[in-house]
Amino acid sequence: MPNHTVLFDITDKAVQVPTGALLSDAAHLAGVELNQPCGGQGRCGRCAVQVTSGSVRARSTLRLSAEDVANGYVLGCQAVVEGDVTVHVPPQEKIERRLTTDRTAAEVQVPSGYDPLADQTVRRMAVTLKPPTMDDQIDDWSRLKWTLQQEIGRSNITISLALLRTVGKTLREGDWQVSAVLDHPRQECCPDCPARLIDLRPGLTSDDDPLWGIAVDIGTTTVSLWLVDLLSGRVRAQVAEYNQQISRGEDVISRIIYASKGDGGEQLRDLVVGTINDLVERACKRVRAKPADIVKATISGNTTMIHLLLGLPAASIRLSPFVPGVNEVPLLRADEVGLHINPEANVDCLPGVASYVGADITAGVLSSGMADSEQITLFLDVGTNGEMVLGSSDWLVTCACSAGPAFEGAGVVDGMRATRGAIEEVWVHSETYEPSWRVIGAGGPREVKPKGICGSGLISLMAELFITGVLDKRGNVNTTLDTPRVRQGAHGGEYVVAWGSETEHGRDIVLTHVDVDNLLRAKAAIYAGFTILADSVGVPLEMAERVLIGGSFGKYINVEKAVQLGLLPDMPWERFQFLGNTSVRGAYLALLSRESRAHLQDIASRMTYIELSADNRFFEAFTSACFLPHTDMSMFPSVAEALA
Amino acid sequence: MPNHTVLFDITDKAVQVPTGALLSDAAHLAGVELNQPCGGQGRCGRCAVQVTSGSVRARSTLRLSAEDVANGYVLGCQAVVEGDVTVHVPPQEKIERRLTTDRTAAEVQVPSGYDPLADQTVRRMAVTLKPPTMDDQIDDWSRLKWTLQQEIGRSNITISLALLRTVGKTLREGDWQVSAVLDHPRQECCPDCPARLIDLRPGLTSDDDPLWGIAVDIGTTTVSLWLVDLLSGRVRAQVAEYNQQISRGEDVISRIIYASKGDGGEQLRDLVVGTINDLVERACKRVRAKPADIVKATISGNTTMIHLLLGLPAASIRLSPFVPGVNEVPLLRADEVGLHINPEANVDCLPGVASYVGADITAGVLSSGMADSEQITLFLDVGTNGEMVLGSSDWLVTCACSAGPAFEGAGVVDGMRATRGAIEEVWVHSETYEPSWRVIGAGGPREVKPKGICGSGLISLMAELFITGVLDKRGNVNTTLDTPRVRQGAHGGEYVVAWGSETEHGRDIVLTHVDVDNLLRAKAAIYAGFTILADSVGVPLEMAERVLIGGSFGKYINVEKAVQLGLLPDMPWERFQFLGNTSVRGAYLALLSRESRAHLQDIASRMTYIELSADNRFFEAFTSACFLPHTDMSMFPSVAEALA
Repeated sequence: MPNHTVLFDITDKAVQVPTGALLSDAAHLAGVELNQPCGGQGRCGRCAVQVTSGSVRARSTLRLSAEDVANGYVLGCQAVVEGDVTVHVPPQEKIERRLTTDRTAAEVQVPSGYDPLADQTVRRMAVTLKPPTMDDQIDDWSRLKWTLQQEIGRSNITISLALLRTVGKTLREGDWQVSAVLDHPRQECCPDCPARLIDLRPGLTSDDDPLWGIAVDIGTTTVSLWLVDLLSGRVRAQVAEYNQQISRGEDVISRIIYASKGDGGEQLRDLVVGTINDLVERACKRVRAKPADIVKATISGNTTMIHLLLGLPAASIRLSPFVPGVNEVPLLRADEVGLHINPEANVDCLPGVASYVGADITAGVLSSGMADSEQITLFLDVGTNGEMVLGSSDWLVTCACSAGPAFEGAGVVDGMRATRGAIEEVWVHSETYEPSWRVIGAGGPREVKPKGICGSGLISLMAELFITGVLDKRGNVNTTLDTPRVRQGAHGGEYVVAWGSETEHGRDIVLTHVDVDNLLRAKAAIYAGFTILADSVGVPLEMAERVLIGGSFGKYINVEKAVQLGLLPDMPWERFQFLGNTSVRGAYLALLSRESRAHLQDIASRMTYIELSADNRFFEAFTSACFLPHTDMSMFPSVAEALA
Repeated sequence: MPNHTVLFDITDKAVQVPTGALLSDAAHLAGVELNQPCGGQGRCGRCAVQVTSGSVRARSTLRLSAEDVANGYVLGCQAVVEGDVTVHVPPQEKIERRLTTDRTAAEVQVPSGYDPLADQTVRRMAVTLKPPTMDDQIDDWSRLKWTLQQEIGRSNITISLALLRTVGKTLREGDWQVSAVLDHPRQECCPDCPARLIDLRPGLTSDDDPLWGIAVDIGTTTVSLWLVDLLSGRVRAQVAEYNQQISRGEDVISRIIYASKGDGGEQLRDLVVGTINDLVERACKRVRAKPADIVKATISGNTTMIHLLLGLPAASIRLSPFVPGVNEVPLLRADEVGLHINPEANVDCLPGVASYVGADITAGVLSSGMADSEQITLFLDVGTNGEMVLGSSDWLVTCACSAGPAFEGAGVVDGMRATRGAIEEVWVHSETYEPSWRVIGAGGPREVKPKGICGSGLISLMAELFITGVLDKRGNVNTTLDTPRVRQGAHGGEYVVAWGSETEHGRDIVLTHVDVDNLLRAKAAIYAGFTILADSVGVPLEMAERVLIGGSFGKYINVEKAVQLGLLPDMPWERFQFLGNTSVRGAYLALLSRESRAHLQDIASRMTYIELSADNRFFEAFTSACFLPHTDMSMFPSVAEALA
């Protein structure tokens, strides 16, 4: 096949690609990172580039205006190279950051009574060996092993070949005094179950030297990492960063599609491993720890994220019957996974339940404590998907609703992520219908003008518009109201939240009928999930004595508004509780204690998964919930009262 | 540091090396393999090359004649590059081959009652899984694992990340019918001791498809490999090849020295791994097996060979107090070791006892059956070292004597390895003192003239010369005899075995007083070993009811002559038995059966090792044995009779 030269104007490196290659592949080859939030499906239009010389065959221009096309714009992911071309890359949309920074993170309580000797799977010990003599010619490894075996009361210890190669040198360097880190099975285990040597250093360490572990949550959007001193149990650093995979797809489905093409899986793997390794570096720097001293890692995340981290094929997750490759990942070593910590460190990917109820949810249930309580609890994690668990110490049922990314600002004309310039809260005057709002990043020395509306802002706005009568039960905009804020737009009735004179880009920020429809469907999917869960165990939803909300999104939801919208069930406010990142906290608990880890396993195996896409009741419940707040107003007495 | 260009005339690739590099390193870089039997110590003189332009600094010219030096010859391992040079590489001595070929190898008996289901650690099973549906969304790995667990009656199975990545594809390719190979612990083991998945293939295999294993013996000189059908237990191919490490040192000490310099250890590792991989290919070709279908390997060899195979530092083996890095190697995987068989195959390096009593000896004891018998047995493996074991089912003592390489032809003027042209047997006329001899390779269509004398020839020659009175008890040549065969040479009295007119090189082949001295010390070391072993347990040596001789050298020893020399104890001939390669046979038994492997472990731990270099009795016994046959003639009644 002939090769063609592709030159991108923002780099001077021309690349050679064969006929039929995509411009997005050529860009990757040239080190130019095009945004591909939709995973390269031609749906989002964010990878548009301009061909300035030569031409390409455009498979789809769906997301481009006729003017764009006339000016030579194409979608990188849809443009097939058939000759030499020069390409102009417009500035790519930057991902702005609004992460929980560790600096401001709350102190994490060490579980009471934490005892590393009893609770930890890893143990460090300093031992002094008898040096060999002509009367005692035992080999180095046996000499070390037998001493360690006595120390930990087990009859077998394994070691990797790589570590075994260093044993003789370390013993002599330390003059037969060494510090060893072991990972060992439960004491009740049979003598043949070996302990494993993770690390060996010359000289005797003291208990003041920290022994490090990391708890990681891989979110589709954000990766969080806690650096933990395993001896005290204290979290010494909390860091978070956007998952670098975002540039290859914003939701799990886009990522799975991207992973299935060419070396997409390896790219995604490198990106998330890179994200974790960067976080390890950053956390270690903060407390002057060495990554090589991290001897244990627990990793939580949704099922897709775990698959992509491990380079496991993820395609079956999105295809009926929605079966993941693995829910319970065997214990791995850091060098297998590619983490830049001690290569022998155990990497424990926590167990998930199903394709769309992953380790992040089981870890969330663990850290929420709901599985230890007789109280019936509803646990909810809203993001692109809404995963929920209903239950108690006796039983647990779970499901996932594909809410779509509306709450993350996608599919909404002026929707955006919760970053600087996003309207995050709106109040609408009940007589004038004039809004007031709060913008993320405002309140500092520099003025921040609104650019769009994020998820919490959308919830707040819709609820206010409903309560004030701008929206009716079906989500229609009442354009007969006497205010310039309501009008007919291209997509039907719309409400103007901010005038162009007030916004950064100079355009009006609006909420359209179509936006409302999308948001209605998203909230209906979640509420229908609650209904089915409750229904499946024959427990009325209002029996739930607590509603626990996890995930970073949860933190910003205004409960009153969410209830008015019909997103959350109508219950006394004191039953609601926001837990923040329950996934990383669950990983932290599993990192610390053998018992918590076993408990997590037990939770995963006890959770009954209900597949909604196969459940006719779900469609009924969904339809009934596609109203503000619901067809059955008796389920929302507080809303009825507010309307009255 | 400035770089210099070194050009070897037998290759057109010039290489760049810094000031101070050795010519031998430059040669390696250029892909020119110089012989270095002494391991690069300047002792053997076999790496001599001629500098034809430029000059080098020669650290030692000990092994070169004044004429050689005048002609520009230097030792590659001693020549320091200090400027650009061109080097002529004379033809390197080729290693000739005299190996047990598989074509002629005896059929190996499968141990009676071999039952793969009961005896094997690996098991293959064909399973049919229920395909996933919307009502049964179990993840792929659990679906497979649970079925396999039921099949083998265990509650846990582990899998490597690499294999896990293939599970989903294999299940679907086989339409939910697959064949799995598992390695699993004893049934008595606790449920937490996991079985390990080694291989997974689409489709159902039948019992007619073979399941392969290999048993390997890594000798210092020769590597032997048996390809075994694990279902029937039958040895389907036997192959052997010189250990490619020979070019870097002929004995273990030279190799250890070579391994300790620069990347010597990696070179030696690559060479022996390459040797094994070549043998795997060859064996597989013969029976149309695929290397990837080999799922298990057992490896025997002396302690140094095992260290070099695994890339473990070996220096401590040759330094007092002679401690190896490891006697009991943990179970490894083929990909860790670098073997080109199934990457997940278990590689089981068999246990040794000490630096100079390795797995080859424990495997030898296992295959000899001496540890199962109440009869007191003496087991002997003679090569460069003489390793020996005395004992029965009740007790086992062992030692190693550094006999030196005299029996392999080194340190003897006309000594050589047992290859084509070597005199392997000599008879001396008791009145005329005229010899007759048998030469290796003779008897074919082409005449083979003698070039030197190999080990069995030296034993035979010395015994004959002693019995006929040419040598006295002390090994002095009686030069007063009336025959041109005895004369004064440069090294004292000598005996002419072949005149120059009869030999290939046209020079006389002689046995000198110095040669005799070296051989006397070698045989005395071995006999002293017997004495000390017997002494250490208070059992007279003649109580040994069997003398079992292992190793390839043993096969060619004439017992009568060896007794006359005082190398073997004076016992009725029927007590002697030659077993051939007991090491690879032991590896074969351990490959087949869990019980044999446990027995081997038991043998290794029961063997009491006696360190001779720390034992004053050894020096006494050695001194007493430095005579023909011994100072105490009452120990050699049959020899006394022959002399009379």
